[in-house]
Amino acid sequence: MAEHAVIFDTDPGVDDALALLYLHRHRDVELAGITTVFGNAPIELTTRNALFLAERWGIAAPVARGAGECFDTRRPAGRFPTFIHGENGLGDIDVAAPARAPDPRPAHRFIADTLRARPGAITLVAVGRLTNLALALREAPEIAGLARGVVVMGGVFAGPGNVTPAAEANIHGDPEAADLVFGADWPVTIVGLDATVPVVMTRARLDALAQTGGEAARLVRDLSQDYIRFYETRIPDGMVVHDATACVALTDPALFRTRRGAVRVACEGLAAGMTIQKPDGTVFPPSAWDDRPSQTVCLGVEAEGVLSAIERTIAGD
Amino acid sequence: MAEHAVIFDTDPGVDDALALLYLHRHRDVELAGITTVFGNAPIELTTRNALFLAERWGIAAPVARGAGECFDTRRPAGRFPTFIHGENGLGDIDVAAPARAPDPRPAHRFIADTLRARPGAITLVAVGRLTNLALALREAPEIAGLARGVVVMGGVFAGPGNVTPAAEANIHGDPEAADLVFGADWPVTIVGLDATVPVVMTRARLDALAQTGGEAARLVRDLSQDYIRFYETRIPDGMVVHDATACVALTDPALFRTRRGAVRVACEGLAAGMTIQKPDGTVFPPSAWDDRPSQTVCLGVEAEGVLSAIERTIAGD
Repeated sequence: MAEHAVIFDTDPGVDDALALLYLHRHRDVELAGITTVFGNAPIELTTRNALFLAERWGIAAPVARGAGECFDTRRPAGRFPTFIHGENGLGDIDVAAPARAPDPRPAHRFIADTLRARPGAITLVAVGRLTNLALALREAPEIAGLARGVVVMGGVFAGPGNVTPAAEANIHGDPEAADLVFGADWPVTIVGLDATVPVVMTRARLDALAQTGGEAARLVRDLSQDYIRFYETRIPDGMVVHDATACVALTDPALFRTRRGAVRVACEGLAAGMTIQKPDGTVFPPSAWDDRPSQTVCLGVEAEGVLSAIERTIAGD
Repeated sequence: MAEHAVIFDTDPGVDDALALLYLHRHRDVELAGITTVFGNAPIELTTRNALFLAERWGIAAPVARGAGECFDTRRPAGRFPTFIHGENGLGDIDVAAPARAPDPRPAHRFIADTLRARPGAITLVAVGRLTNLALALREAPEIAGLARGVVVMGGVFAGPGNVTPAAEANIHGDPEAADLVFGADWPVTIVGLDATVPVVMTRARLDALAQTGGEAARLVRDLSQDYIRFYETRIPDGMVVHDATACVALTDPALFRTRRGAVRVACEGLAAGMTIQKPDGTVFPPSAWDDRPSQTVCLGVEAEGVLSAIERTIAGD
């Protein structure tokens, strides 16, 4: 039996595709399900894209369609980042209509059912907005006690953000959901920009990956080209592999420098979407962090180690 | 003529006292005025303490009494940190009633008058809440163009804060004032916890300072004892010399690692008082940071260099 049974909550999304392939190829990971969420594209597209990738790569895990609007439905969805992920969410490559249908359940119910069916076994790896996880917690709060853990790509702790100077996109896109997820009594590991921005896969390395990783890796390379062109405004060469880095935090946690403490999310004003930790051992007057569980925040990363893990795994080593 | 003509805006305050002595003793600094603000203690006490210290140390500069409530008067003043600075704001040493009277003008008018009288010459060194500076800007916005610069002890950029996990005390105590001051068109250097917390003067070094620095330095040592006892809950030995570190950022800027960019202050919710910079060169959608001047934020410090500068200066080298 694989060491990690994972439900991958995702909004493919270019870097989501690489992350999905990483989880699928990793010998210690069993993909127990894929749940989709809006974010990098509307929910219709992220669900279609997840089904397409699962079909192309022979991933048997069910795909359940999730939220298409924020946890607090009064919060607008915002504009989709077509300038990063393309109009179709996968870098505008041709995406064939998948033959597979999604699981009949909405994502949050699929999550709750699966956690109940395999108590203590499942890790949720969430690399989009945390809407599905928050909906699952609202409908079935007891599931917090049934998860083995939660790994989140989102947030930033030493700044700056990527959609505002204060905030990272996944958390900014649904801050109320994130605040609920970080405050639930399950062990959360938060892999934010502090740990993902240093992890840059250059064009040359992605091309090499496409050689060693076969047809699936070639698809990842092809759908990543527009994303890399977007990153030309920010880094010299290549792409930040945010979502795959969070997956490596599951399989190779020793590559990350972490800090423990309660985490809250600002939901209003110019700080909206900001993730703020009260490190364990620090002393403050009574505050909004009190009586919240201590979670693990990644503050640093051995970037080369993460890239090597991705390359080895995609190549099937 | 001294290189730096300074108005010192202060709320003495234990570490304020060391900072004042540093400015008074520094050969390159002319103290053009002292303005008081509430914060470490009520305005009656911080003004009394400033007059007391000026009298004891033979500082001729006028002392002008400043704000006793927040810039937005609907914001409560909060509780005074008597557990850090004592009931009297100076570590509960005996403070004789000063013979000197304050300047007849309120601090914000003293600031405006002095900037107008000496255009381009004065640096404001503000180590408390920024209420006086904000009041001066509101009454006479043109003064921003008359200051040589502003050095602020306040804020935190890589966290955590010291009064909440999000915020440092001076900014948290009057966030609307700070947001106005950081957004004005004068050059601001922000010396926050990222650059002050590493600067720890141990008991032994403070005792040595009391030997080399004469009666004035002995007074600083004596009034710092309760403050050091407070810090026992946080550091092994000694006191963080927040305010003096900001003064060293004026005289020895090369000791600081800095980053330029517009700075905003969160004023609401659990992030209230948080200082957030948009580093120059980063690209975001339209945001609350647009059309604000780039300011200098200190992100790191050569702590030993700062301590040496303080020791040399207090000793009269």
